[in-house]
Amino acid sequence: MTKRNDTLGVAIVGCGTVGAAAARLLTRDADILQKRLGMKLELKRVVDLDFTRAREMGIDESLFYSDLDEALADPSVGAVAELIGGTTFAKTVVEKAIAAGKHVVTANKALLAYHGSELFAQARAKGLSIGFDASCVGGVPVFSALNGGLLANRIDALFGIVNGTCNYILTQMSAKGQSYADALADAQADGLAEADPTLDVGGGDSAHKLTIMASLGFGQNMDIDQIPLQGIDTLELCDIQFGKELGYVVKLLAIAERQDDGISLRVRPAFISKDHPLAWVSGPFNALSVYGHATGHTMYYGRGAGGTPTASAVVADLAAVGLGTAAVNFNVLPFYPDENEMANQLPLEAIRSRYYLRMACDDRPGVLGKVTQVLGRHDISISAVLQHEPHESLGEGVPVIITTHQAIEANVQNALKEIAELGCVCDKPTCIDIVEEYPEELD
Amino acid sequence: MTKRNDTLGVAIVGCGTVGAAAARLLTRDADILQKRLGMKLELKRVVDLDFTRAREMGIDESLFYSDLDEALADPSVGAVAELIGGTTFAKTVVEKAIAAGKHVVTANKALLAYHGSELFAQARAKGLSIGFDASCVGGVPVFSALNGGLLANRIDALFGIVNGTCNYILTQMSAKGQSYADALADAQADGLAEADPTLDVGGGDSAHKLTIMASLGFGQNMDIDQIPLQGIDTLELCDIQFGKELGYVVKLLAIAERQDDGISLRVRPAFISKDHPLAWVSGPFNALSVYGHATGHTMYYGRGAGGTPTASAVVADLAAVGLGTAAVNFNVLPFYPDENEMANQLPLEAIRSRYYLRMACDDRPGVLGKVTQVLGRHDISISAVLQHEPHESLGEGVPVIITTHQAIEANVQNALKEIAELGCVCDKPTCIDIVEEYPEELD
Repeated sequence: MTKRNDTLGVAIVGCGTVGAAAARLLTRDADILQKRLGMKLELKRVVDLDFTRAREMGIDESLFYSDLDEALADPSVGAVAELIGGTTFAKTVVEKAIAAGKHVVTANKALLAYHGSELFAQARAKGLSIGFDASCVGGVPVFSALNGGLLANRIDALFGIVNGTCNYILTQMSAKGQSYADALADAQADGLAEADPTLDVGGGDSAHKLTIMASLGFGQNMDIDQIPLQGIDTLELCDIQFGKELGYVVKLLAIAERQDDGISLRVRPAFISKDHPLAWVSGPFNALSVYGHATGHTMYYGRGAGGTPTASAVVADLAAVGLGTAAVNFNVLPFYPDENEMANQLPLEAIRSRYYLRMACDDRPGVLGKVTQVLGRHDISISAVLQHEPHESLGEGVPVIITTHQAIEANVQNALKEIAELGCVCDKPTCIDIVEEYPEELD
Repeated sequence: MTKRNDTLGVAIVGCGTVGAAAARLLTRDADILQKRLGMKLELKRVVDLDFTRAREMGIDESLFYSDLDEALADPSVGAVAELIGGTTFAKTVVEKAIAAGKHVVTANKALLAYHGSELFAQARAKGLSIGFDASCVGGVPVFSALNGGLLANRIDALFGIVNGTCNYILTQMSAKGQSYADALADAQADGLAEADPTLDVGGGDSAHKLTIMASLGFGQNMDIDQIPLQGIDTLELCDIQFGKELGYVVKLLAIAERQDDGISLRVRPAFISKDHPLAWVSGPFNALSVYGHATGHTMYYGRGAGGTPTASAVVADLAAVGLGTAAVNFNVLPFYPDENEMANQLPLEAIRSRYYLRMACDDRPGVLGKVTQVLGRHDISISAVLQHEPHESLGEGVPVIITTHQAIEANVQNALKEIAELGCVCDKPTCIDIVEEYPEELD
């Protein structure tokens, strides 16, 4: 057996936080990399119009180029790392790189969530590969697991905390008793939330990642526009506190579950038992729990964002191009988005879960009876009831918390509508999923 | 680009719990595997003298063979899974398989810890590969991470809970207040501990795994016989309880740390903060925390043993042989044991850690002063002191617990010898490492 090409030439396109960190790993740490890889990843060009971040990171200015087409015409460049973000110009860059015969590595979850199939097909037609381990859970090699060590598994479920901004905010709310608005402001001040945090706190970023991870995990394509989405921006501090009393921690979860009749996907704040490994994931850390039919539960934990951790995954994907393993995997494994069929995504209404319901009730006899009658009529069985003294942040009424056994989401929503109309409940009831430990089947 | 060979013929040698589970994955789940892999892993032969377990698992008897040489002469067999265990006949099997031109996959940590370099060199000389993700942390693909997604990292430290038997026993002691002997007896009754548990509870099994993981992680070979080893069999319940009061959880940790002058390895029960992710790993679950210079802390969690989880890793390694990625990695990555130099393993005395010291002191004035004077003379700085009422399980004296700041192990051992000789301390002081969160350097 002969050694492979001993050098892979790399162009980085887009030199913000991740691009500059990747450029630094490839240059400053060239010795470490060569020692680890047995081959050289040689940074040939950094393409951008603004090199502020690259200069801050001490990248050699002789590598700076502004002309994309010229970079793509460079025959010494074998792989292009697209680190621009967004779904418009980034798409053009990936398409041009493929057309120019370059392997592509990207950290762009939005691009792959919306245009993955199309781009993978273009790469496949040219005998090229697209690496994307940097797109989900930052430096944590979740696709090394899904495409590698977990290959013997039928993947049954994925539960992910995949947005560091949200997890940081929720951890602060829970630990410090901060309101959502205060915790967000702190996160923004600490550089852990964007000035416009909508994509993070609204759940959109988590949905991008869920789309890619579920597609690879289940070998079926997911339509991001059909994923029911709820962010953390509507969470009340009091629910976090009531949940804690019940033994739960709230997390923004990206969930994909195989069910008899299809795949159930959702992104939403959910309570999990404080004994579940995902409950321990705090601050900006992320984690993905994977349930396979042979391994049972495995979990992958680490920093889900940040320049250097994400760049670590970019460089590992470049290494796989250089080693030739990316092309082999891409060529043989049959579950890349362009070769998958569309999944049967179950509608929101079909979700089965346990639920935490909170409502402010009039403090007079018979109210709880009326509420529970409505639940019973909708086939919702009660697990526990917690009635509290009036709570300052809740305004009128006595807070009543009801947790349910497994119920169908449509029934719960209908019951809550009826409860709101009872006249003895002061405002719209709050409803939060309680996600139980997924039943491992080690079979 | 053409598709690879679309079938890999497999022989399983050794059909106990893991072998039979692997045979079942390869046969009963052939459809799942083909769908996931885009190629076929075809079980050709199961070689053993006793097929009890294979029959229990419903493996087709036409696959049963007793003659190893005949199986190795079968040209349709491309890979051999050695699932016998032990370091004698298993070594012969691996050597014969390599001599016969077969790729090898093994779950045998002892074999690789003692003979890895030799076996890898034999495989390399024949252009073959050895896959061993099943050898450490069961179904959790830690080598998919170390050899794949973490390739861009200089690995700085590994902290592992890598023995399910020990973790189960410690979890029971901590949660139920059981003594070591009772928890061990329960684990044996539940099939979670061997009749002779020495290799597990004494730390030997963890040392096997640490040797392999550190060798791959640091790209230097480790000498298992130089790893300081302490098991859980000497742990007193009261220390677990005192540790809990101080905010610590006790775990049997396998530790490898890069230091300025070498690699520090050890296996021992240690206290970790209840806020560290490893503290959450309970029951038979295992986890490996990896600290890389680019990713910072990442952690890999799951079932560290058991037939099907371990078989999952065996089959994933077979898949890598079939796909061709095993051979590529083995051919190019330069940090397999046969190509590594020996590490400079630091001696026990050079370990730097924080320590928990417990001693039973005479209940009279000045004793604590004498003890702390000895510590001071040995350059050991005290972090906290906790003096308790006499404890029923401790016999004579008042239990005094002292936690130290970072100190050198040799100094601590010398100080403890002096303290034992003071005459005011009733029995041999107890000393347990306090492992602090490894300082992430995201650089």
